[in-house]
Amino acid sequence: MGVVLSLSQHWSLDPDVVFLNHGSFGACPSAVLQRQQALRAELERQPVEFFVRGFEERFDAARASLAGFLGAEPAGLVAVSNATSGVNAVLRSLVFEKGDELLVTDHEYNACRNALEFVAERSGARVVVVSIPFPIEGPAEAVDRVLRAVTDRTRLALLDHVTSQTGMRLPIERLVAELGAAGVDTLVDGAHAPGMLDLDVSRVGAAYYTGNCHKWLCAPKGAAFLYVREDRRERVRPLTISHGANSPRPGRSRFHDEFDWTGTDDPTAFLCVPAAIERIGSLLPGGWPEVRARNRALALEGRRVVADALGAPLPCPDSMIGSLASLPLPDGSPEPPETPLYADPLQAVLLNEHAIEVPVIPWPAPPRRLVRLSAQLYNEPEHYRRLAEALVGSL
Amino acid sequence: MGVVLSLSQHWSLDPDVVFLNHGSFGACPSAVLQRQQALRAELERQPVEFFVRGFEERFDAARASLAGFLGAEPAGLVAVSNATSGVNAVLRSLVFEKGDELLVTDHEYNACRNALEFVAERSGARVVVVSIPFPIEGPAEAVDRVLRAVTDRTRLALLDHVTSQTGMRLPIERLVAELGAAGVDTLVDGAHAPGMLDLDVSRVGAAYYTGNCHKWLCAPKGAAFLYVREDRRERVRPLTISHGANSPRPGRSRFHDEFDWTGTDDPTAFLCVPAAIERIGSLLPGGWPEVRARNRALALEGRRVVADALGAPLPCPDSMIGSLASLPLPDGSPEPPETPLYADPLQAVLLNEHAIEVPVIPWPAPPRRLVRLSAQLYNEPEHYRRLAEALVGSL
Repeated sequence: MGVVLSLSQHWSLDPDVVFLNHGSFGACPSAVLQRQQALRAELERQPVEFFVRGFEERFDAARASLAGFLGAEPAGLVAVSNATSGVNAVLRSLVFEKGDELLVTDHEYNACRNALEFVAERSGARVVVVSIPFPIEGPAEAVDRVLRAVTDRTRLALLDHVTSQTGMRLPIERLVAELGAAGVDTLVDGAHAPGMLDLDVSRVGAAYYTGNCHKWLCAPKGAAFLYVREDRRERVRPLTISHGANSPRPGRSRFHDEFDWTGTDDPTAFLCVPAAIERIGSLLPGGWPEVRARNRALALEGRRVVADALGAPLPCPDSMIGSLASLPLPDGSPEPPETPLYADPLQAVLLNEHAIEVPVIPWPAPPRRLVRLSAQLYNEPEHYRRLAEALVGSL
Repeated sequence: MGVVLSLSQHWSLDPDVVFLNHGSFGACPSAVLQRQQALRAELERQPVEFFVRGFEERFDAARASLAGFLGAEPAGLVAVSNATSGVNAVLRSLVFEKGDELLVTDHEYNACRNALEFVAERSGARVVVVSIPFPIEGPAEAVDRVLRAVTDRTRLALLDHVTSQTGMRLPIERLVAELGAAGVDTLVDGAHAPGMLDLDVSRVGAAYYTGNCHKWLCAPKGAAFLYVREDRRERVRPLTISHGANSPRPGRSRFHDEFDWTGTDDPTAFLCVPAAIERIGSLLPGGWPEVRARNRALALEGRRVVADALGAPLPCPDSMIGSLASLPLPDGSPEPPETPLYADPLQAVLLNEHAIEVPVIPWPAPPRRLVRLSAQLYNEPEHYRRLAEALVGSL
């Protein structure tokens, strides 16, 4: 118990709420926020010094730190505000033609699915939606479903590394390799992967990989990255075309020139990524591997406790779980829920009557509603027992 | 002198530097930064509460405050990170065809000119560059030059309200009206206008108007807006397509739904716009009108002092000056300077030997180099005298 308390004290989360929703927006340790505040004070003391003369070196240092953590070469790595923007930057850069097919699964995050529909509609391409069952037997089923949908018109697959609503880790390396063998590039939406999984972006091998640093890396809000493989780097332009398009900096690539400056903004979230990597990695003796292992063990334990209380079967094998886990709620209704995300009355009951913050997520096929658990260092086993009791009493 | 000191003390700028470059990145008063810090603390205490349950009301309040200040109806106003991104959002939403002509002047900000070239290249449209002389007789010359370039293929004009390098206020209302009469929409890049000019976006009447709040409104970095006139609102989509594309919120427009959420990011800069409006407006008894008048009077005085010292004529009439003013440097070289923005050796001399931060800006036609003065409440007449002396000693 002492150890657990000493971990939660590194965050400034409301101690009166059981916070089981790290997944939606992440949470940043106080020490990293203090570092960010110091950077902002420096910025405001001399804005020109900060943005013009000191910026490049500091930005490159943050990129190098993140690149090392991710196993990605810095030349292919740039900052974006969030993974949705990373997905948009790639999709709005690529040129599709009428009749091209763009693959996506029905577990894809809604925002990114919308971006895919947007570029398809503009170009006359067609979005092909692959249905992945949930509950699912195992990862092979996901691979089979995706590969069976490939045709000679398939140009790109947009795939979550960890699915957002259903909280499952997809076998992304195998998917990328098999799709690549079929001549299909993959854009990986790794919104939840960095910090949750032992991610090695080079090993994944995708043409495009984007992920958030403000979720499981615990950086401040607005820190995220886009990685583009060398043979695709020429094609990808930022959403905001700015000076980099015609103002090369000595010894730098156009890819960096364009993405590193997209107009005046607060860059301190990305600059704090090294502090987040260092801070979280210092909270347990085994560093990041121990952090990931602890969070995963807690997520697995949490979903067992809740599933047992609900009398519900586990919807996917343990091998597909990182530190997010979704469980179907034993719902009577055969109809899809009409409530949008975060608006389910049960979510309000859990918060208002039990002081538990956890998302209740609509799902289009039976099971109709999911409860999605997160496990981060500030959580403890007791939190999931409280959730299980509250659910049993509320359903 | 006492009054002047009492104004600069509201900022946290380095007291050892004469800061004459408000124009590049702005500067935010300490009280507004404190408000932002309080919002961030609230965000980190309960991220879901902040982003989901309290967000809409708070965001709408910031929008309403800014809309009132700008004279724009809130229905047409959304937040972006900076004016360059606002320009990109419009340009990348519009559909152009081969042979269409897109007007721009040779005073346009380089980043936004690049965005125009990007969409032109993609669509086969042609960028038509209107040359505006500098020095210039007066605003009528700018209007004449722009209107003479209009043909029946002209689809859009991208025009600065205040030019960035040359610091001139263009007669934007007349330009928008005359272009409109010729069937040409205007996208106004008002990066420097809000807080500098007595801006009334409805009176300007442009189809699209974007501006920064982090420059002359003194909001935190990353606060900016895009306004779209009602008859063009359907066409404009954010750079990041997200949930709003298919998830309408009750009683709200798709325009707001799409722009108000473009993925997890730090939204506190925009939320602090009301605090910036209130704070700056409270620093002088006459409120914002007095702030604008004082800054303009100081810019006019400053440019006279420097021009007299250099023996250089004023390059434009006082009527074209807000609180930015550019002066040609008496430069011997007939060639355009090769140094990029901020890299002129003279700028380094002024900073390192005279502790004056002021931009020396390359200009493609004679005069080859410009020095651009800013005047904000923390500046005083003595600053321009020091600059004049330093320039005379350094040239």
